[in-house]
Amino acid sequence: MKMSGLPNQSCFKPIKPSSRRTSISHTKPQSITPRDDHLKMPRWTIHYPAGAISRDDKDQIAEKVTQLYTDLGLPAFWVNVFFHEHSVGGFYAGGKANHNSVFFHIDHAARKPQSEEARLMFVDRVDGIMRPVLGEKCMKWEFNVYDHPRDNWRINGMIPPMDHPEVLKQWIETNEPVPY
Amino acid sequence: MKMSGLPNQSCFKPIKPSSRRTSISHTKPQSITPRDDHLKMPRWTIHYPAGAISRDDKDQIAEKVTQLYTDLGLPAFWVNVFFHEHSVGGFYAGGKANHNSVFFHIDHAARKPQSEEARLMFVDRVDGIMRPVLGEKCMKWEFNVYDHPRDNWRINGMIPPMDHPEVLKQWIETNEPVPY
Amino acid sequence: MKMSGLPNQSCFKPIKPSSRRTSISHTKPQSITPRDDHLKMPRWTIHYPAGAISRDDKDQIAEKVTQLYTDLGLPAFWVNVFFHEHSVGGFYAGGKANHNSVFFHIDHAARKPQSEEARLMFVDRVDGIMRPVLGEKCMKWEFNVYDHPRDNWRINGMIPPMDHPEVLKQWIETNEPVPY
Repeated sequence: MKMSGLPNQSCFKPIKPSSRRTSISHTKPQSITPRDDHLKMPRWTIHYPAGAISRDDKDQIAEKVTQLYTDLGLPAFWVNVFFHEHSVGGFYAGGKANHNSVFFHIDHAARKPQSEEARLMFVDRVDGIMRPVLGEKCMKWEFNVYDHPRDNWRINGMIPPMDHPEVLKQWIETNEPVPY
Repeated sequence: MKMSGLPNQSCFKPIKPSSRRTSISHTKPQSITPRDDHLKMPRWTIHYPAGAISRDDKDQIAEKVTQLYTDLGLPAFWVNVFFHEHSVGGFYAGGKANHNSVFFHIDHAARKPQSEEARLMFVDRVDGIMRPVLGEKCMKWEFNVYDHPRDNWRINGMIPPMDHPEVLKQWIETNEPVPY
Repeated sequence: MKMSGLPNQSCFKPIKPSSRRTSISHTKPQSITPRDDHLKMPRWTIHYPAGAISRDDKDQIAEKVTQLYTDLGLPAFWVNVFFHEHSVGGFYAGGKANHNSVFFHIDHAARKPQSEEARLMFVDRVDGIMRPVLGEKCMKWEFNVYDHPRDNWRINGMIPPMDHPEVLKQWIETNEPVPY
């Protein structure tokens, strides 16, 4: 696909992890554990100019995003991914209606601050999902993670069973919000 | 309406209030008072797969949501409700493009923490608005409430007259942001 | 354009700055400095009923919004502006599907609380961008500013070079996220 507004330059080179972390400690990240409290109620919202992300790309991204959280012990059906396709005039980047930018935000609902290690590992995984799709198209991609309180989170009126492991297990196995 | 991706199961049963509050105290909720500071600047954003919510449903939901806040002494025109209908490929739940999920978030602008009683009463009212519409369609519905600061809230450039009861009364009666 | 639901009244009069600040101190606002930490990662999301904002309006708003931030020393390509046009049934104000309301929120990513002076100056500038477009159409406009943490903000996987002035200068001049 040829996009108007695409800058005349070669694609951005892959960034080495070290250069991405210049302002933070170089402690070796440890894997995110299933106990990571910060990744609850995941919602990804991806804004892109029309044509920049294909249906196949979206299937692939949604599958990887879902797996990111199911690997941590969350039911798959908790993971919501939204794609907003914008026609020209719906998404301006740098004041321009035509551009090669993708913006997305990730909303979580957490109880306490996340460890630095888990946070950095998570950010790396996010980038690892989007880079293969967007990098080879010379897109620019920008994201942030927004944290929200968890108190008022409800699924079918129920408090998600974080404090009821046996119910949570049932929700994971059936992939449904079984009443409890 | 038959939705592809609808799970083969009977509808979720209504949940008794007691089971929804297993992790919190069982203090009897008191009614939300007009002084509840936490429900200002209400905005509901409801994401649903195409066809899952009808125009009649939307009229009904928007009316009930508005009444929820006007009962508390807010001008009706402060209440914004957005419905985002997603065609297949715009909203993935659990990695699936076809599903029976509705996700919505409620954004408020508050000054101080809300009492537990008012918070729980509010969450129950939210569920009472959505359950009649979504429950009978066997939809899954998930929501959270996001809190934001209120300092920069403006309507037509004016600070909403929370500290000017006589102006607020005028705004309520005219349902317009009368200059003050 | 004639919009159904438009109230039978003359346009809202311009509000004098003094009347907009009744609940805050009357300290003379100083200009926002390039060091203002609170205006990073700007994203404007503007919801409007179909027909209320033209393509020309959008071009003009996006340009002014972008300049608001580039004046502060941010690269233009950091500024994202989204316009969501809603057909009837997608945006209810006060329970009504037909209305003359525009709602927008501004999302930033900041490190520390903003000074009162800079905050008020910013709010005035926001209003100065939207009032010429919406005021003469007798639209109502409402907004708020949402603050988010900045830790997980990434552009092409890189931490935006706030702590690397020479890289930031390069990003501004090329208007691209040059790898570093």
